[in-house]
Amino acid sequence: MNAEIGFPPNVLAAECPSRAVLKHLTSQWGVLVMLALQDGTLRFSALRRRVGGVSERMLAQTLQVLEGDGLVRRVAHPVVPPHVEYSLTGLGVEAAARVAALTGWIEANLDQILAARVEA
Amino acid sequence: MNAEIGFPPNVLAAECPSRAVLKHLTSQWGVLVMLALQDGTLRFSALRRRVGGVSERMLAQTLQVLEGDGLVRRVAHPVVPPHVEYSLTGLGVEAAARVAALTGWIEANLDQILAARVEA
Repeated sequence: MNAEIGFPPNVLAAECPSRAVLKHLTSQWGVLVMLALQDGTLRFSALRRRVGGVSERMLAQTLQVLEGDGLVRRVAHPVVPPHVEYSLTGLGVEAAARVAALTGWIEANLDQILAARVEA
Repeated sequence: MNAEIGFPPNVLAAECPSRAVLKHLTSQWGVLVMLALQDGTLRFSALRRRVGGVSERMLAQTLQVLEGDGLVRRVAHPVVPPHVEYSLTGLGVEAAARVAALTGWIEANLDQILAARVEA
């Protein structure tokens, strides 16, 4: 529908802009932030505790990218000390459901996957 | 169920082995190889043509990792010149369906995502 993005969008095509969104949503921390925000609005510090192993810097950068794609909403309450909350947008809720379907499948089949590895 | 992987598996936990599988399935080329193989068995050269922008080296490395996870099957026919085919295993078919649900969502909503970006 959009001349800029070609029609139809196709992630298998190197020049398709869908590749950038795919990259953001499938980055290690992108995946995990989307999952963590499925449970609802979280402050930065709470989000960092949910996403095991993420650094402050990587979390901030990941949130900025997902906000730029319209998947995450950042609300800064004008209080002292600052109080910043993150949540999924409507688009983000839809994307997170697909991400969660993949991670849920991995979690549910991890035994089998690890067994397949041993056989290889 | 498995002491080694903890119970239940949880990708949000830094030490969970599901993280490694997630990393492989959400790597840029991992995603696209799984998608491309959804259409059926492909030889290396045909697969490389399907996955726009991938180098020989990255494709070979990605296939090796996915084979190691039991998601991709490699069959080398003993002929001259060598004839090597790649296909999804049963586990791979299931994983690819989840990957395709995510990429399909991105492709279907790319207009909206790009519009959200412009507003940001």
